[in-house]
Amino acid sequence: MFNNIGIVGVGLIGASMAIEIKNKHLAQTVIGFDKNQQSLDIAVKNGIIDGYSNIKDIGVCDFVIVATPVASIADVIKEITPNLKEGTLIIDVGSVKSSIIDSVLPFLDDAIHYVPIHPIAGIEKFGVDAAKKDLFKGAYCIITPFEGINRFAQNKVENFIENLGMRVEIMDAKSHDNVFAYISHLPHFIAYALVGLIENKNDDRFKFIGGGFRDFTRIAASSEEMWSDIFLLNKKELLHSVDEFKIQIDKIRESIETENIESLKEYLRQARIFKESLDEKR
Amino acid sequence: MFNNIGIVGVGLIGASMAIEIKNKHLAQTVIGFDKNQQSLDIAVKNGIIDGYSNIKDIGVCDFVIVATPVASIADVIKEITPNLKEGTLIIDVGSVKSSIIDSVLPFLDDAIHYVPIHPIAGIEKFGVDAAKKDLFKGAYCIITPFEGINRFAQNKVENFIENLGMRVEIMDAKSHDNVFAYISHLPHFIAYALVGLIENKNDDRFKFIGGGFRDFTRIAASSEEMWSDIFLLNKKELLHSVDEFKIQIDKIRESIETENIESLKEYLRQARIFKESLDEKR
Repeated sequence: MFNNIGIVGVGLIGASMAIEIKNKHLAQTVIGFDKNQQSLDIAVKNGIIDGYSNIKDIGVCDFVIVATPVASIADVIKEITPNLKEGTLIIDVGSVKSSIIDSVLPFLDDAIHYVPIHPIAGIEKFGVDAAKKDLFKGAYCIITPFEGINRFAQNKVENFIENLGMRVEIMDAKSHDNVFAYISHLPHFIAYALVGLIENKNDDRFKFIGGGFRDFTRIAASSEEMWSDIFLLNKKELLHSVDEFKIQIDKIRESIETENIESLKEYLRQARIFKESLDEKR
Repeated sequence: MFNNIGIVGVGLIGASMAIEIKNKHLAQTVIGFDKNQQSLDIAVKNGIIDGYSNIKDIGVCDFVIVATPVASIADVIKEITPNLKEGTLIIDVGSVKSSIIDSVLPFLDDAIHYVPIHPIAGIEKFGVDAAKKDLFKGAYCIITPFEGINRFAQNKVENFIENLGMRVEIMDAKSHDNVFAYISHLPHFIAYALVGLIENKNDDRFKFIGGGFRDFTRIAASSEEMWSDIFLLNKKELLHSVDEFKIQIDKIRESIETENIESLKEYLRQARIFKESLDEKR
């Protein structure tokens, strides 16, 4: 149980965490910090946070959750660190880890206990209005420890995550960024590219776009602010996955070009079997 | 109202059409024709067709619906044409049109009235077991007339489609194949390529695959028999769309590589806006 938990960035993730913290009585007070006054007003009005304050007052918190846009996380931590009291626990919830950790570690004080995490709970909506109860229920939350991390702080965060109703996984940041390039960032990249292509073709005939296409491109309705940041912050891993994806495209393309139906069918069959094995694990 | 409607190929589309025909009393008798005895047995048992017969008896039908796998449609029509009685109406429901029409026209008798259609009602399931009521309700059905089509036959088919509860659209076959390359065949191609890539990476870390990825690859669980045929039958249009897609990939890739955040963000923003405009038209 914490005294004052500070949520810096009262958006989808920050506000949804605040909701769980209050529901599960994990803090006496939940205080919001956000440059956007409207977000703070909505969060107070909806009982998501107990109140809000100026970022200069962050020192009242014994636990700080940084849930600002991913590209600003390192700067936010740098900005608030001097005002934190000794022994404060601080986590960030960014969906890219290596670049944040690399930026944060150089100015991190031993008196401040930083633990980087990634709750796997994104939806295509964003902002405090999209915040909701049970967003994290049963979902994985990955902790990406770095060399020299305070083990006591890490344990505290593990307990906190479990209390929120999530399943803890430990993974190094590089592995994390590699896996999420393939299973999250690349699919978003592809969805954007496909919608971008169709958009250029825009004519009345495209009214036939059906359920399959819509499902496929649902994620292209995500925030461009967030995704352009994620793409750039995970540039190396993402571009590598894009290049590997292009090789797969060319493989299928070649089977079609040469009308090699057996090799084409076998490719599609393997993909279907793997897809079905994923569904079974659901 | 028809006397005997013959359904050649009692799979998802053929059997679902039979269900509507019977529900809407559009024929006195619905007769199934299929090489697969089990499909016929299931269809009879579930009351989807009134009975079945050998393909040599197709001459009892005044209306024939060819709903076999898309690659076999032209051969099936060629095979049954000599046994059809004069004035028989015949439609095919293939999702690729130009190549079927091109194969069928040379051996088509004036006494047989052929109308190519494409009901936009695919789901990722297949076979008679997946057949269901209302599969076509409110969906578009495209008729792709060719030069010299029998207008009287075309009108009859238009009425039939409307009676099934679908919305009729008229489009030339080349346009049809072009549009569906972009909105259906390419998305399937991409889904297969993405699942194929992840499959090659298979390791435990991929348990984090979330909702977004699953939606995205839902269509990769489609029948590889069907999709390898569609890809080959619409080869020219599909490969063209694949190459254009690769250009879009390279465009986004370039923005990330050069860290041009403004151009990247603008690309994603346009895609989101277009996606939202599609949702509004839903």
